[in-house]
Amino acid sequence: MPEQAAAAGHRPAPVHTHPDDVPVLTALSALADPVRMDLIRTLADHSDWTLSCSNFDVSVGRAAKSHHFSVLRDAGLVEQRDQGTKRLNRLRREEFDARFPGLLDLVLRAD
Amino acid sequence: MPEQAAAAGHRPAPVHTHPDDVPVLTALSALADPVRMDLIRTLADHSDWTLSCSNFDVSVGRAAKSHHFSVLRDAGLVEQRDQGTKRLNRLRREEFDARFPGLLDLVLRAD
Repeated sequence: MPEQAAAAGHRPAPVHTHPDDVPVLTALSALADPVRMDLIRTLADHSDWTLSCSNFDVSVGRAAKSHHFSVLRDAGLVEQRDQGTKRLNRLRREEFDARFPGLLDLVLRAD
Repeated sequence: MPEQAAAAGHRPAPVHTHPDDVPVLTALSALADPVRMDLIRTLADHSDWTLSCSNFDVSVGRAAKSHHFSVLRDAGLVEQRDQGTKRLNRLRREEFDARFPGLLDLVLRAD
């Protein structure tokens, strides 16, 4: 939403892809990365919209982290919204499960 | 088996990893590739041990194809055995399904 982007200092609002529009290759590629698996697992452990991007403790820099979130949005895995200077996150668990049954469960269960 | 390797002109017998020993990241990485998805789908359409590596019509060279089969073996997806000069293939569907329920189905269904 434009007003959210403005509130976040004119940062463009994040663009999302619905899981229904995601090819299976895109979904698998998004999940097949250790940093993104970490992000997904952390999101699954917290309530929707409670984690901002700065809350994720991953071993990559700011630009790389931003790229990883972009990949997750494009794969229909994460929804984001800006609130003030924070970008809040939600795992799109229900929609993603409907499109790719069982796939998230494989990533979230103990290996 | 050593005698198979000898029959295939001293080519070393292929080394396999059982799906039970495969981390989910390895399985996802193996599947998240268009050429390997093609190989898997072709295998699923044929009976076990009926396709040799030369039967797969993929858009990569011989060395790259060999690498892709190696990735599939390491992910517990494909079993191979040498018969004369041919390397025959089998999709490890049952074992892989037991380890990663539903994952192969997502790759094999129409996208």
